[in-house]
Amino acid sequence: MSITVVGSVAFDSVETPAGKRERCLAGAATYFSLAASFFAQVRVIAVVGDDFGAAEQAVFDAHNIDTGGIEHTAGKSFFWQGSYLENLNEARTLRTDLNVFAGFEPKIPSAYRDSEFLFLANIDPVLQRRVRESMPGVKLVAGDTMNYWIKDHRPALLEVLKGLDILLINDTEARMLAGNNNLLQTARTVIALGPRFLVIKHGEYGATLFHGLGKGRTGEQPFRAPALPLEAVIDPTGAGDSFAGGFFGYLASQPELTLGAFRRAMFYGGVMGSFACERFGTERLQQLSRPEIDERFNLFRELTHLD
Amino acid sequence: MSITVVGSVAFDSVETPAGKRERCLAGAATYFSLAASFFAQVRVIAVVGDDFGAAEQAVFDAHNIDTGGIEHTAGKSFFWQGSYLENLNEARTLRTDLNVFAGFEPKIPSAYRDSEFLFLANIDPVLQRRVRESMPGVKLVAGDTMNYWIKDHRPALLEVLKGLDILLINDTEARMLAGNNNLLQTARTVIALGPRFLVIKHGEYGATLFHGLGKGRTGEQPFRAPALPLEAVIDPTGAGDSFAGGFFGYLASQPELTLGAFRRAMFYGGVMGSFACERFGTERLQQLSRPEIDERFNLFRELTHLD
Repeated sequence: MSITVVGSVAFDSVETPAGKRERCLAGAATYFSLAASFFAQVRVIAVVGDDFGAAEQAVFDAHNIDTGGIEHTAGKSFFWQGSYLENLNEARTLRTDLNVFAGFEPKIPSAYRDSEFLFLANIDPVLQRRVRESMPGVKLVAGDTMNYWIKDHRPALLEVLKGLDILLINDTEARMLAGNNNLLQTARTVIALGPRFLVIKHGEYGATLFHGLGKGRTGEQPFRAPALPLEAVIDPTGAGDSFAGGFFGYLASQPELTLGAFRRAMFYGGVMGSFACERFGTERLQQLSRPEIDERFNLFRELTHLD
Repeated sequence: MSITVVGSVAFDSVETPAGKRERCLAGAATYFSLAASFFAQVRVIAVVGDDFGAAEQAVFDAHNIDTGGIEHTAGKSFFWQGSYLENLNEARTLRTDLNVFAGFEPKIPSAYRDSEFLFLANIDPVLQRRVRESMPGVKLVAGDTMNYWIKDHRPALLEVLKGLDILLINDTEARMLAGNNNLLQTARTVIALGPRFLVIKHGEYGATLFHGLGKGRTGEQPFRAPALPLEAVIDPTGAGDSFAGGFFGYLASQPELTLGAFRRAMFYGGVMGSFACERFGTERLQQLSRPEIDERFNLFRELTHLD
C-alpha cells in the first residue's frame, strides 16, 4: 500500500544540551516520510527552494520515496531555528522563515491518486482540507496539527477533523482542542469532532490510542504504548512526526486494519520516535535499518510485558 | 508475610475541581496500609491525637490492620490542608499543622519485630533510619521521600538510601535527587546511592521500574507500567502512597521475589493509585473489594497488551 503525505520539507538549525547543528534536512513531511519508508511506499507533496539540492534529493531516493510531488521554486526552503537549551521537552523558536512555503499550493501528481493512505502533516488546515478533498478515494486519512491552528484557525481546523480517520496530537494540543484537562474526557470530545481514532502523544511517557469511546466504561478501552527511556536525547525535533510515520507506515503495511494492527502500530510509532531523538535532525532515520527497528520493537514489547 | 509501615496518620482538608472535604482520614501510612491490606498483613507505626477516635480506628480494624504501634497522645493529629483547584497534578499547600507529629518518636512494638517487609513512608529521614536500624532482620525495605528532605536534609536522606532495597519517588523528586533531567541517567545515579530497585512514578502516565542498570544497554531493561486514563480524578491526594501500598503489598504476598513478581507489583501499584483518585481522601480504598482490584488489574494488562 502507498501513503501520500503533504507537509513541510525544511531546513532546521537547532541547539540542544548535546550541541548544535546548522541547516539539517528536516520538516514534518521529511521526518514522516523517512520513518514510514521502512514500512510502505511513500509519496511526498511539498515545496522547496533552490537550497534543496542533490544531497537532499539523495536522502529521499535512498529510501525509495517518491518526490514527484515536491515542487521546486525559486527562493529558499522553509527554515526553522530553535533551541532546547532550557527545556528538552519544548523547543523555543528563535526564527521561522516561511520562504517558498508562504505561497504553498499543494499539487497532487496524478500518479499519487491511487494512494490508499493519506497523511496530512502539520500545515494550514485550509491546505489540509484541500488535499483531503482532492483524494476522495483514500482508505485511511490521518493528520496532525499544532497549537497555532487550534487557537487561531479553529473553524478551518474543525472542517479538517470531520474528514480524518485518525488525529495524532500531543497532550497540550489535545487539551487545548477540547478545553479540558482530563485525558479521557478530552479524547471523547475530540472523537466527537470527527476522527474515529485519536492518538495522544505524551513525549517521553509514550502515547495513548483512543477509539470509539462510549460513556463511562462502555466502548473500547484506550491502549497505551510506552516510550523507551533513552540514554540521551540528542535532538527531540521531529519525534512526533517520526511517531506518525512509524504508526501510519505500519498500518499501511498490514493486510487488515484490525485493532491488533493499531496496537502494534502504536508501538512502531514509539520505536521510530525514539530513534529520531538519538541524533540531530533526520540523521538517525537516514542511517536506520529494518532489523534495528524490529529489535527495538521487541525492547518496547519487553518494556511492558507481564508473564 | 507481614509489612510494618511507619509514617503519618493524619486528617486532610482538600479542595479539588470536584468539590471539597473537611478533615478526611488521611496520611501516607493510612493510604499505604489500606492499599497494602488487600494483599498482606499490615502493621502501622504512627502517632495520633485525641481527634483520632472510634470511627478512625474502625477503618483500620475493618482492614485487619494492626494498630498496636499507633501511639495516642494528648493534642491533635497531623493536619494538612491543600488545594488542587489550579493544578490537579500538584497540590498547593494551604496549611500544615504537625501537631502531635512534631514530637514523633517511632516505637516498634515487639509483636512487629518479625515483619519481613518494612515500608518507610515519607517522614524525616532521621526517623526513617532509626526505624530501619531497629529492624535489622527484615527481608525487604522500601521507602519514599519528598522534595523537602531531598533539598534541605540531603545527608540524612543519603544515609537512609543506603539501607533501602527499593526507593519509590516521583519524576520531580528523582530528578532533584540526581540533579539530572534524563530519566535513565537519573535512575543510574539514584541506584548508585543504595537502592537496588528504583520506582519512578509519572502520575497519570504510569511508573517505571529500574533495576541493576549497567552502562549503556547492558544490565536489566527498565519496566514500565501504565496508568489507566480515569473518567474523573476526584482527589489525587495519596495516589503515590496507594501505589506504594499496592506494589509492596503484592510483593509481600508472593512466595518468591522474581522479576515477574516485581512487574506484576508495578501493575498492582498503578491499580491502587488509580482507585485512590476516584473519591476524596481514603474513601474509595475503604470501600474497595479484592475482586474489583483484580478486575482493574486485568484492565491495566489489556491497556498495553499486544497479541
